[in-house]
Amino acid sequence: MATENDIALLTDLYQLTMAQAYFQNRRTESATFSLFVRAYPANRGYFVSAGLEDVLEFLEGLSIDTSAVDYLHSLKIFADDFLDFLKSLKFTGEVWGIPEGRLFFKDEPVVEVTAPVIEAQIVETFIINQINLQSLIATKAARCVHAARGRAVVDFSLRRTHGIDAGMKVARASYLAGFAGTSNVRAGRHYRIPVVGTMAHSFVSSHEREVDAFRSFVKSFPNNSILLIDTYDTIAGARKAVEVGKEMAARGERLQGVRIDSGDLATLAREVRKIFDAANMKDVRIIGSGGLDEFDLAEFSDANVPYDSYGVGTKMGVSADAPWTDCAYKLVEYDGRPVLKLSTGKVSWPGKKQVYRLRDVNGQLKNDFVTRRDENVADAEALLTQVMVQGKTVASLPSLEQSRAAFLEEFSRLPESIKSIRDPEHYSVEFSAALKELRNAVERKVAGAE
Amino acid sequence: MATENDIALLTDLYQLTMAQAYFQNRRTESATFSLFVRAYPANRGYFVSAGLEDVLEFLEGLSIDTSAVDYLHSLKIFADDFLDFLKSLKFTGEVWGIPEGRLFFKDEPVVEVTAPVIEAQIVETFIINQINLQSLIATKAARCVHAARGRAVVDFSLRRTHGIDAGMKVARASYLAGFAGTSNVRAGRHYRIPVVGTMAHSFVSSHEREVDAFRSFVKSFPNNSILLIDTYDTIAGARKAVEVGKEMAARGERLQGVRIDSGDLATLAREVRKIFDAANMKDVRIIGSGGLDEFDLAEFSDANVPYDSYGVGTKMGVSADAPWTDCAYKLVEYDGRPVLKLSTGKVSWPGKKQVYRLRDVNGQLKNDFVTRRDENVADAEALLTQVMVQGKTVASLPSLEQSRAAFLEEFSRLPESIKSIRDPEHYSVEFSAALKELRNAVERKVAGAE
Repeated sequence: MATENDIALLTDLYQLTMAQAYFQNRRTESATFSLFVRAYPANRGYFVSAGLEDVLEFLEGLSIDTSAVDYLHSLKIFADDFLDFLKSLKFTGEVWGIPEGRLFFKDEPVVEVTAPVIEAQIVETFIINQINLQSLIATKAARCVHAARGRAVVDFSLRRTHGIDAGMKVARASYLAGFAGTSNVRAGRHYRIPVVGTMAHSFVSSHEREVDAFRSFVKSFPNNSILLIDTYDTIAGARKAVEVGKEMAARGERLQGVRIDSGDLATLAREVRKIFDAANMKDVRIIGSGGLDEFDLAEFSDANVPYDSYGVGTKMGVSADAPWTDCAYKLVEYDGRPVLKLSTGKVSWPGKKQVYRLRDVNGQLKNDFVTRRDENVADAEALLTQVMVQGKTVASLPSLEQSRAAFLEEFSRLPESIKSIRDPEHYSVEFSAALKELRNAVERKVAGAE
Repeated sequence: MATENDIALLTDLYQLTMAQAYFQNRRTESATFSLFVRAYPANRGYFVSAGLEDVLEFLEGLSIDTSAVDYLHSLKIFADDFLDFLKSLKFTGEVWGIPEGRLFFKDEPVVEVTAPVIEAQIVETFIINQINLQSLIATKAARCVHAARGRAVVDFSLRRTHGIDAGMKVARASYLAGFAGTSNVRAGRHYRIPVVGTMAHSFVSSHEREVDAFRSFVKSFPNNSILLIDTYDTIAGARKAVEVGKEMAARGERLQGVRIDSGDLATLAREVRKIFDAANMKDVRIIGSGGLDEFDLAEFSDANVPYDSYGVGTKMGVSADAPWTDCAYKLVEYDGRPVLKLSTGKVSWPGKKQVYRLRDVNGQLKNDFVTRRDENVADAEALLTQVMVQGKTVASLPSLEQSRAAFLEEFSRLPESIKSIRDPEHYSVEFSAALKELRNAVERKVAGAE
């Protein structure tokens, strides 16, 4: 791995070539960039904000050390005066963001960065990378939590996330969106998330007989064993778990649960539940896993399949049905002048903005207004909060637990039609008259200039 | 981010609970695990091996420091003697792998690990994580290279990869599979990959007029400018690029190319090509980007759309149509005894193995044989190579450039029917009689024991 000090090089080359052009043309004015998602992926009707904390940490620590500058020099495309300038690069700007755990919708700015243009440009790649990934996963995880209707859902995805950083961020983002814990031990440590785990097929197959494996495992975990029962035959496995569970009870211990990881998960859960109930072991929990996603969980919920909780892995951890969002970080203001882009299908809204959220008398979310930054909307909550001033993070960022609580509260107030797992309705997001007027004015100006 | 020293905690909790059960039951025998992919994602007929180098680096550095053990202690599920044991944990085993850049097929072991069971088990999560991601991306990238039919393809994906680690590994894996370079500056530095870049829409919109932006940019890069021409109107943008290109020629400079990033990319390329040809600027290259994947590239190749090269981003960087593979790391031998798993749809092959590859007289790839490790196949190449002995990487690992060259050679010898972008045929992979016999024997034994 490259050194930690060259984290600023986690950028696209064109950010640096544009920076040199700005530098050499003495264009160092303040620019505002707005990060938003252009469209909902299939079956999505909302997004969950996540990733802001990592963005702020990155911006606070931004610097390019000598060895990184030496590398850039070796590319033979950068001028010496520009490379000297880079050596003292810091991020000195301000950041507004929709707090983590809060809902946001398409076309709404979730992050707005204002800084001297070179600074604001170079950090684009990292900011998109983290907000895209973490919001994508928080959204997918929220869908799983919603589909599970009160049953606990835990993150088993680390082995299939796209690398290590994703493994950490998926554990955090899914917990933010209401997951009960993660199997990722390092994420548990770093983010103080509950860690959870059962046993693997290899533990069973390493023993001569399945029942030996069960006995061996519960000897080490007399009060928190969850036995994996599908290595050979799930029904036979359940019967052996009953046998071992009764031995435990005789010793004053308690079998916590069993896990089913393959086969017809709905049918097997029902049969396994019957076996434990018939054995008077009604408190033995059944955990389902194995390629599950929110579509399966919703189906199981609808059919009252007797799972007590779920481990979801791959499909959540890579947001398998929608592994990216069409998010963009667009220049909206340069040197006080509002700007936009007219590329086909990618027209942007100029100027600094604010997002206002309105609730009805019962506290249900009603609609959002996107306005110019300096507008006010009566009886509405302003969502974009200033989280960085002159390159320093404000002191009052919420903790992960606070953000998780805020998510759960707000999500409970989002209409079911928007939360639907399939073909959700679109939440009402309106743009203020002043913003529309500004966009028209800027379009006319561009048309005139070009 | 957690400290680098707790990298061993990048594992699932159950790896550690199983480890404690093994430890307390004095089961410390040698185990062999086999990593393979169970099925092809849609439209896939081959995989490209990638990620082995990172796996070996991880295994060599495996250790758990005191503060990480303190964290595990705080979970109140681990015994003191086991935690003491963890403090001296190292990886002391051996690894066999199919070298990076080589093709492999479903059901073929791409990595086999043999070590004391606790060591081999704890490292599962990381090994799957890296081999899955990197092989997935190398495979997706190979499809893009194949579809581009000789036109250069470069990696623009960093902003949408799933985190930082993925951003680095995608740059490396795509270069391994024949990409010409990456926009990721840090990956360029770390892996010595050519870095490439053009300009962004923000550079254009930050200027009062598009033509001013072009002039400003080429002033800084008189000989390697690629102008982005679709910020407002692509055809008008092309005409302005002609104007600026002529100014450059008058100064003895040269406009290298233009990039089109939105709209009807095929039609626009043809119109833009005509504009430059009519201006006697036939050597100005046209670069296509904007949501491209191998399906688009194949279509453009079929229709002779006049792009000279492509930047591919998101859809390659997350392998959008197939963001995961069904890969597994299965126990195949414990204490000299071959084992397997019989879970529905997930039956595994027992024992240590070798993969042999046969070519025909013209050097074309013909078929593979999977055998027991100690079998020989005449006139065939053994693909699994021992890359780690007693916890130390062997000295002779190929460089990234060597692996890339090996990929390009072998890929050119893979029949077109297997490489097809849609509905490829399946490559012939046979299992030796001895392996089939072993599987039958183990199945019978399991059936008897259970």
